[in-house]
Amino acid sequence: MKRIAVLTSGGDAPGMNAAIRAVVRSAACQGIEVVGVRRGFTGTIEGDLRLLGPRDVANIIQRGGTILGTARSHRFRSPEGRAQAAENLRNFGVEGLVVIGGDGSFHGAHYLMEEQGIPVVGLPGTIDNDLYGTDYTIGYDTAVETALGAIDKLRDTAASHDRIFVVEVMGRKAGHIALDVAIAGGAEEVLIPEDNLPIERVIESIRQSIERGKTSSIVIVAEGVDGGAMRVRDLIEQGTGLEARATILGHIQRGGTPTSADRILASRLGDAAVSALASGTRGVMLGIVNNRIVETPLPETWERHKDVNRELYRCAKILAI
Amino acid sequence: MKRIAVLTSGGDAPGMNAAIRAVVRSAACQGIEVVGVRRGFTGTIEGDLRLLGPRDVANIIQRGGTILGTARSHRFRSPEGRAQAAENLRNFGVEGLVVIGGDGSFHGAHYLMEEQGIPVVGLPGTIDNDLYGTDYTIGYDTAVETALGAIDKLRDTAASHDRIFVVEVMGRKAGHIALDVAIAGGAEEVLIPEDNLPIERVIESIRQSIERGKTSSIVIVAEGVDGGAMRVRDLIEQGTGLEARATILGHIQRGGTPTSADRILASRLGDAAVSALASGTRGVMLGIVNNRIVETPLPETWERHKDVNRELYRCAKILAI
Amino acid sequence: MKRIAVLTSGGDAPGMNAAIRAVVRSAACQGIEVVGVRRGFTGTIEGDLRLLGPRDVANIIQRGGTILGTARSHRFRSPEGRAQAAENLRNFGVEGLVVIGGDGSFHGAHYLMEEQGIPVVGLPGTIDNDLYGTDYTIGYDTAVETALGAIDKLRDTAASHDRIFVVEVMGRKAGHIALDVAIAGGAEEVLIPEDNLPIERVIESIRQSIERGKTSSIVIVAEGVDGGAMRVRDLIEQGTGLEARATILGHIQRGGTPTSADRILASRLGDAAVSALASGTRGVMLGIVNNRIVETPLPETWERHKDVNRELYRCAKILAI
Amino acid sequence: MKRIAVLTSGGDAPGMNAAIRAVVRSAACQGIEVVGVRRGFTGTIEGDLRLLGPRDVANIIQRGGTILGTARSHRFRSPEGRAQAAENLRNFGVEGLVVIGGDGSFHGAHYLMEEQGIPVVGLPGTIDNDLYGTDYTIGYDTAVETALGAIDKLRDTAASHDRIFVVEVMGRKAGHIALDVAIAGGAEEVLIPEDNLPIERVIESIRQSIERGKTSSIVIVAEGVDGGAMRVRDLIEQGTGLEARATILGHIQRGGTPTSADRILASRLGDAAVSALASGTRGVMLGIVNNRIVETPLPETWERHKDVNRELYRCAKILAI
Repeated sequence: MKRIAVLTSGGDAPGMNAAIRAVVRSAACQGIEVVGVRRGFTGTIEGDLRLLGPRDVANIIQRGGTILGTARSHRFRSPEGRAQAAENLRNFGVEGLVVIGGDGSFHGAHYLMEEQGIPVVGLPGTIDNDLYGTDYTIGYDTAVETALGAIDKLRDTAASHDRIFVVEVMGRKAGHIALDVAIAGGAEEVLIPEDNLPIERVIESIRQSIERGKTSSIVIVAEGVDGGAMRVRDLIEQGTGLEARATILGHIQRGGTPTSADRILASRLGDAAVSALASGTRGVMLGIVNNRIVETPLPETWERHKDVNRELYRCAKILAI
Repeated sequence: MKRIAVLTSGGDAPGMNAAIRAVVRSAACQGIEVVGVRRGFTGTIEGDLRLLGPRDVANIIQRGGTILGTARSHRFRSPEGRAQAAENLRNFGVEGLVVIGGDGSFHGAHYLMEEQGIPVVGLPGTIDNDLYGTDYTIGYDTAVETALGAIDKLRDTAASHDRIFVVEVMGRKAGHIALDVAIAGGAEEVLIPEDNLPIERVIESIRQSIERGKTSSIVIVAEGVDGGAMRVRDLIEQGTGLEARATILGHIQRGGTPTSADRILASRLGDAAVSALASGTRGVMLGIVNNRIVETPLPETWERHKDVNRELYRCAKILAI
Repeated sequence: MKRIAVLTSGGDAPGMNAAIRAVVRSAACQGIEVVGVRRGFTGTIEGDLRLLGPRDVANIIQRGGTILGTARSHRFRSPEGRAQAAENLRNFGVEGLVVIGGDGSFHGAHYLMEEQGIPVVGLPGTIDNDLYGTDYTIGYDTAVETALGAIDKLRDTAASHDRIFVVEVMGRKAGHIALDVAIAGGAEEVLIPEDNLPIERVIESIRQSIERGKTSSIVIVAEGVDGGAMRVRDLIEQGTGLEARATILGHIQRGGTPTSADRILASRLGDAAVSALASGTRGVMLGIVNNRIVETPLPETWERHKDVNRELYRCAKILAI
Repeated sequence: MKRIAVLTSGGDAPGMNAAIRAVVRSAACQGIEVVGVRRGFTGTIEGDLRLLGPRDVANIIQRGGTILGTARSHRFRSPEGRAQAAENLRNFGVEGLVVIGGDGSFHGAHYLMEEQGIPVVGLPGTIDNDLYGTDYTIGYDTAVETALGAIDKLRDTAASHDRIFVVEVMGRKAGHIALDVAIAGGAEEVLIPEDNLPIERVIESIRQSIERGKTSSIVIVAEGVDGGAMRVRDLIEQGTGLEARATILGHIQRGGTPTSADRILASRLGDAAVSALASGTRGVMLGIVNNRIVETPLPETWERHKDVNRELYRCAKILAI
């Protein structure tokens, strides 16, 4: 194997640059050249490719976002688009492709391999942590840390004003971020899509906590919960008669300097992706399970469901008293 | 003067604790006792008062929010409420009152003095920086820093996705935070209430910057601008045909560890408030103008208008090219 | 079991407060009272004990240090001291003790149980991550993050000046912090006590990286390495003829707001400690291995050696090119 | 004026990139080209010059260090070196030069203008804030904030262990950083070169504060104080019989993302430098005094002394009780 390509696709996530750097440098150690593809699969179709050497990825490990850019590509969703992409990659001498992204990106990668025979390896790059086959995705730890920083700030005001804050965090259909943030932020309540906790129970619980002497409350709502923070806020106000504030943290959770955990995860996976491609592995996502790198066939990453940590969920309830 | 009281009122602002600490410790140096009032003027009416010694304010200089709490008081808006408040303060031996808050709080303080003869001194405690008589209010620098941190994170995503972000920052009717954040965050556009910039001009400017090669844009909108970030986002999408994202930073701007600038400002003003009361000064807000502490009669603080820095505004336009 | 005690001992570590909070609240859920012991084992000998209710631990999850304080106790090292400690605990109705600390603290806890029959459970609270029986210790993630933040800042200067920085991080006899920081910080070299890398190899490697075009280098040195950063700096200067700067990060690595990972780990372990004591478990440390809570007999925690992650170490070398 | 150059010289300071960006963009608005000089005066001698357009300075406002690099130049200290530098600049069509740095850099700039007739304007870029002619230098606010963050972390440990910490901060011969950090960090004592406070007074003061119930102390020492933190630590240990820890914060104070205040200051001054050169001003440093941009002849910036804020110094003493 003489030349591989790397691209980032889907929503950007902190640590993607660390993964790109690891792919480039690990490949250089093995005598393999690396081609960076601009703006995800769009760049494969448009032939927006350029060689990346070890110096090109200097001083990027600490940067949020992705130096390669990312974009949605409608054309890549068609077999014709993927054929064009494969042709461009082959013309550039690319013998394997590392795709850093989430399940949508892995779908694309899977079809590119199935239809066109391009060897692909996926790395889990998404803040949502919603991929089967890895305990953590690249960007997740940073997103939790960013959301937690916001909760800490809101608690200052909640405590000063005896107020209820309803805070919506990211995570798409999954409650991983919400659950971590709830425990780490000492939130009084947490609503996640994995659990169909009736809102009445939350309201009753807030009432009880006020009776126990809590004068402020923070309620974490995962974005996948029906109606989000706005609806929960309304229902709490109706149910308790107290004023509540809704805050949607939004896209700030995607950005920022990656944490050490995300940089290390990205570095390990980027390094492993090169070795995997070089040794003939393909069609899998590399993830981390129990601190070891494991391979999962791409389709399993979206077909199988990763549950939240139920013990954490139980713990969150106990510690909120 | 043997005993004074201190309270925080209105929205909480980072640095209020540093001001409380300074009042308590500076008073102790002069042999004056300090009474902390809980939850703003509500605490004066309810007699929620307690002595605060130098050790009671240890280890609070770095904390956001206010250890005294803050609340709105409807009863304090009536002369009867203020009479009750004054009686409670006098019964507790209070000979002067330091009010840390914004213009609403200063109204209350003013009437308390006019009607009841309680000597009051105000300290500007609000993130909005919208008080005449001081270059900076306590909490403003931290709020700008917090908003800027969020902008930096959004820029990661904006740059990675070639996207337009419309970000609403706090400031009530004033554009101070927006303007500072726009320059420091390298925003492409800024809309503030002090300027009636037609939205068409902004749209045209975004179009031009795209033509000049900018692939992403950040537009800062002060909350006092008609319709806020949501309306601006809609108009930009209609006017440019590009997708834009709106983010409302909200209450996170109120919280967090105060910056050094806010802690120092709060410390200086808290110290000066004690000296002012002790030397017979009353009915004024203490502020900082050209790095000197100045007194402004309370009514002037809300009657006179503090404009944004026009040179900064001009500068923001030039640097966004 | 009606009443248990909790103490923090040894060096403070971020997340200790989250662990205390979890012990108190989890116990309250099970109808068990919690006694807080001030200043570690010193407090057991001096009888410095007080009941802690769920409200007493509100708003501490985000605070560095330990609200209970910590201290060295010479008297506790003698059987007489431990007898006095046990008597005080029994007189206060304490039926079990949670000790949050490192190996020195676990020694004390072990003897207290062996000699006096006080049921003890240990929680790993140290930034060094040097305890057998847990993948991570409470405080470790925060310490790595703090050190990493410092490295990021130093890199700004290193890159601007084409300079070599030698940075000493904490970790006592262990290289865990150094290794994580080296990978996450993109350091060019790392020296840890677990490896007897001859300094000549490091110097040769720096020479080569300069030849490959690197104009600045960051060398991470664990404090357990012979001579620390100062000696390494001297040897590099002699060996390369280039100027190098040494920085010892020191105690800042112990403090600060704990990361989400540390708060969650501390919360889970604190909750588990109560359940363990209540169900008759004693004489063990609770740790986290492969994301599950596991029990390790106290003596094993210091008798057995926890190696650094060798794969990480290999990875660090590759990515530094 | 058709073309000017910009360089950064001396120690790097956060905000230098914001100043470079402002020079480039402000010049572009006025139809003036900008040449970036690499590695300070070294680049003028070696002819390491390249044109910088508005896009070349995109996304750098938030970065620490300086994209142009900085270095010491021995050759520039001789008239021959400066003649070579001037020739290179003229050959490249440069009609004016913006020098961002400290007093050493301004010396060089001054001689370049005096001997060679190159119009120069200086901008104060140093964390030390030790230049006459400006209230604040670029980088100072960030350095104070960084040092303060470290103090906050140390206080966690100091409070948990009842310990004395002696912390050395940067500032060369000046105590500006030390004083700000002392007040904002709630330090018990501060030693600055501007004051010849006998160390006995400090020791006596620590003794008294322990008697008043303070169990931990933080002592800030400016690097310009004789012997630095190490000597002060030794004297405190001898004088009080208590254990004390010394920490030298070092180069981390130079790096990191600049604060909003530093980015705004740098932006305003960079913009003003272009206008100044264009309008024929030369041989001056532009600074900010009472929030207005003022010009000071270069020699005055090093000949005249800027004192610390004496009122702050008094305030620090009062608030430490």
